[in-house]
Amino acid sequence: MNIRLDLQYDGTNYHGWQIQPRDITVQSVLMRAVAEVTSRRANIIGCGRTDAKVHALHYVCNFDIDTTVPIERMPHALNAHLPDDIVIRSASIVPDDFRANQSAVKKTYLYRILNTEMPDAFLRNYAWHFKYPLDFEKMRAGAKAFLGEHDFIGFAAAGFTVKTTVRTIYSLDLRKNGNMIEMEICGNGFLYNMVRIIAGTLAYMGNGRIDYRDADAVVASRDRNRAGITAPPQGLFLKEVFY
Amino acid sequence: MNIRLDLQYDGTNYHGWQIQPRDITVQSVLMRAVAEVTSRRANIIGCGRTDAKVHALHYVCNFDIDTTVPIERMPHALNAHLPDDIVIRSASIVPDDFRANQSAVKKTYLYRILNTEMPDAFLRNYAWHFKYPLDFEKMRAGAKAFLGEHDFIGFAAAGFTVKTTVRTIYSLDLRKNGNMIEMEICGNGFLYNMVRIIAGTLAYMGNGRIDYRDADAVVASRDRNRAGITAPPQGLFLKEVFY
Repeated sequence: MNIRLDLQYDGTNYHGWQIQPRDITVQSVLMRAVAEVTSRRANIIGCGRTDAKVHALHYVCNFDIDTTVPIERMPHALNAHLPDDIVIRSASIVPDDFRANQSAVKKTYLYRILNTEMPDAFLRNYAWHFKYPLDFEKMRAGAKAFLGEHDFIGFAAAGFTVKTTVRTIYSLDLRKNGNMIEMEICGNGFLYNMVRIIAGTLAYMGNGRIDYRDADAVVASRDRNRAGITAPPQGLFLKEVFY
Repeated sequence: MNIRLDLQYDGTNYHGWQIQPRDITVQSVLMRAVAEVTSRRANIIGCGRTDAKVHALHYVCNFDIDTTVPIERMPHALNAHLPDDIVIRSASIVPDDFRANQSAVKKTYLYRILNTEMPDAFLRNYAWHFKYPLDFEKMRAGAKAFLGEHDFIGFAAAGFTVKTTVRTIYSLDLRKNGNMIEMEICGNGFLYNMVRIIAGTLAYMGNGRIDYRDADAVVASRDRNRAGITAPPQGLFLKEVFY
């Protein structure tokens, strides 16, 4: 049967989702827990890669397995074999053709920027500490340029292999709570490091290093050099995956 | 000169404040940073002990030192030598007779209880996960019994040495935000584990294991066996120290 897991993880102590030869990853730890609970080795398909230190408020994966463990007992059984920075929230039996990666139609990411002079001991792993001035209204104005369908090749790290670099952004909302700026972005797909480069570009617009009035031109240029830096991984959270 | 530091720390990776022969503590790490910045060994006086895994949103310490480092540069200089889970927020020169411990007149602690069936990956180090039902109104009713001056010997762990076990609680407020219950308690002093035992007792009242209508009798009994369990350390935050 095809099992879907909905989970969350604090990525601080992991080298991302994807299994690696040497480093500890969420996928490798989860594979071991599934093997311990079911006595079966499963090929776990994740909804996407996340980088080292990136978090998931809601991640989805699936695997095909032959097991007698009742589906309603699966979350507790797996959690008993997982470290407490990975939590299975629910498990369900899904149609055979469900694939956590290919079946996803859109995703929402959250990126958090702490804009204070001093760092914060409790947010060190959960936000980008940006200590220079940020003009929130400039960031909000610049954000509009990313909406809709664009070739985002200028907002991707090197080394990816995809058929097309065209993606559609459905929404890009910025919120400010005290000194915390939150960016929530929803799209049909994201290139490698794309959310972090957009976050870095908006921070540069807020700081004036990139003129926010050039936002349309920066997006249209398809030129990585005109975008901002890649914002650090600890500020990034996969928030939702839609099927 | 007598220097006062105001700092915060995430206690997750420390064996508490107080220096220990073998284990890493906040005081020992801070002493090393002060030595690196000033080339002097200082005797750092903290405002109180915190247990392993307990946090401080606002901690105060002081030390007497002869240094040419300007006081306004001290926070950044120390932070450059500290791990990022300890952050010096400010430094000031205080009168010679200021002692972070003896000069404190009251303290406020925060205790957080996450009342959900499932644990939360992001709160594992910052709240007590209590998965059984809690009746918030019973907890609030029971909390009133702790207000005022009482002999809190029934709410202290063994092994302490103090002149008196009488303490005054000025306020004890309970708040509920979604599934998170927060207890904020302010008093002129707290015995060893006192805040955690009060939190555990209120949880037991909310859960019905202790009748909340017996709260006055439980406090008056001075009997550790009538109180609830010692709530775990990760839910506890020192919030404020008053001088």
